[in-house]
Amino acid sequence: MPADHQYPGGPQRIARVVGRELPRATAADAARTLVDGASTGTLATIALDPAGYPFGSVVSYGLDGSGEPLFVISQLAEHTRNLGGDPRASLLVTERHVEGSDPLAVGRVTLVGDATPVPDGEQDAAIAVVARRIPAVAGYAGYGDFRCYRMAVRAIRWVGGFGEMDWVDAAAYRSGVVDPVLPHRHGIAAHMDDDHADSGILLCEQALGTPVTSASFRHVDRFGCEYVAHLGDELAIVRLAFSAEATSSQDVRRLVVELVQAARAS
Amino acid sequence: MPADHQYPGGPQRIARVVGRELPRATAADAARTLVDGASTGTLATIALDPAGYPFGSVVSYGLDGSGEPLFVISQLAEHTRNLGGDPRASLLVTERHVEGSDPLAVGRVTLVGDATPVPDGEQDAAIAVVARRIPAVAGYAGYGDFRCYRMAVRAIRWVGGFGEMDWVDAAAYRSGVVDPVLPHRHGIAAHMDDDHADSGILLCEQALGTPVTSASFRHVDRFGCEYVAHLGDELAIVRLAFSAEATSSQDVRRLVVELVQAARAS
Repeated sequence: MPADHQYPGGPQRIARVVGRELPRATAADAARTLVDGASTGTLATIALDPAGYPFGSVVSYGLDGSGEPLFVISQLAEHTRNLGGDPRASLLVTERHVEGSDPLAVGRVTLVGDATPVPDGEQDAAIAVVARRIPAVAGYAGYGDFRCYRMAVRAIRWVGGFGEMDWVDAAAYRSGVVDPVLPHRHGIAAHMDDDHADSGILLCEQALGTPVTSASFRHVDRFGCEYVAHLGDELAIVRLAFSAEATSSQDVRRLVVELVQAARAS
Repeated sequence: MPADHQYPGGPQRIARVVGRELPRATAADAARTLVDGASTGTLATIALDPAGYPFGSVVSYGLDGSGEPLFVISQLAEHTRNLGGDPRASLLVTERHVEGSDPLAVGRVTLVGDATPVPDGEQDAAIAVVARRIPAVAGYAGYGDFRCYRMAVRAIRWVGGFGEMDWVDAAAYRSGVVDPVLPHRHGIAAHMDDDHADSGILLCEQALGTPVTSASFRHVDRFGCEYVAHLGDELAIVRLAFSAEATSSQDVRRLVVELVQAARAS
């Protein structure tokens, strides 16, 4: 993820960043994780009519081993007819929107590429991959008008929320890792801020070596967690490394407790 | 809405349709209602890079009096840069997805048109329209890089769910009516089927003049409601007119009770 986080609407300046060198889930990891965490997105195609217009439609998808989307779609559907005329497409996938939160603050990924039918000899295997993610596909894939398409991804736009965004190289996306913690970061952050605010202040004061007025849990991935600490009118970002890669959100609890215990002991 | 409803996966044939001539919310009404009921959608634009690819992104929108979307967007955003190169765009809006239901069964509308900046002298008024729907806009519209764009809608694709779909004429869309009942039809249907199954059977048997094995509430709008009745292996669709236009979902209760009382009395 890029370092230039913006905090729109706030007058606060980011005065210090601690731990920037520590390992962190990359934008490629975040994109792979986000796309892996959903099964429905918006397919944009180039319309046959009105000709040349970009056309958005709802589509379910599966993923092959390198994170490339597979769609089982009807030849009668607008988007399929459009792909027949022009294979250029994109798939927008958004994180689940938490009721009441700002819809523009949710993470989202646009995969851009060319969507073409999977070769005839590979149709059944590809459909089986999609059906593992979307069981209903097994029901309608047998209809004569459905075929499986694959999007060869050539560019990836990732937006983590306000001010966090990046283009991700296609090769980096394909080799990116689905992070087991990233999908749970909002819930973990809310829990830490609501129930363990003292721990955040302790961790930030130790990392910064100075008193802070408050600290908010802002990010967590398999490698570690981040706080935003308030130093009067200024902000500091504090990144802390876990002693081992977290394999689940439950695992994060143990690793954060470990960080807090170490801070208390020192 | 089109008359040729399909019931995928079912062997049942639609043997009879009663009340086809009764007033019904049109596809234009359904599209206007659906777009009116949300404030976030997917904007598809033609990318500058990779050039010519359709690019989907998340956008908040307001609506002018004829249902044309207004966007307050940053000149730094990908979609805004794309519109600078090519104003052709579409906006996909989906109904709220009920947890656990099939995401391809939700209603959705794709508005296709050209999105260009609102003239300078009309910017403030247009931004005020958007801010009424999205209060956060008032906070960021003042930033120098934000401007309001309007999409001149030229084609509308409406999908009501499985097998219900239509192209809507742009003029019909602009003069379409936001139906106060349509957004509540799923909840009303679930309530009617769960708690008032007897009423459905009574209403269908009276309308068809023959016994039915079961009846499901399938649709309601301001003009009336519809059931699917099961006649052995076949289906019948029964449309019933309310005695007056319903102005709310609460109103529907009174009007359906009136229909049931009339059926009992006859």
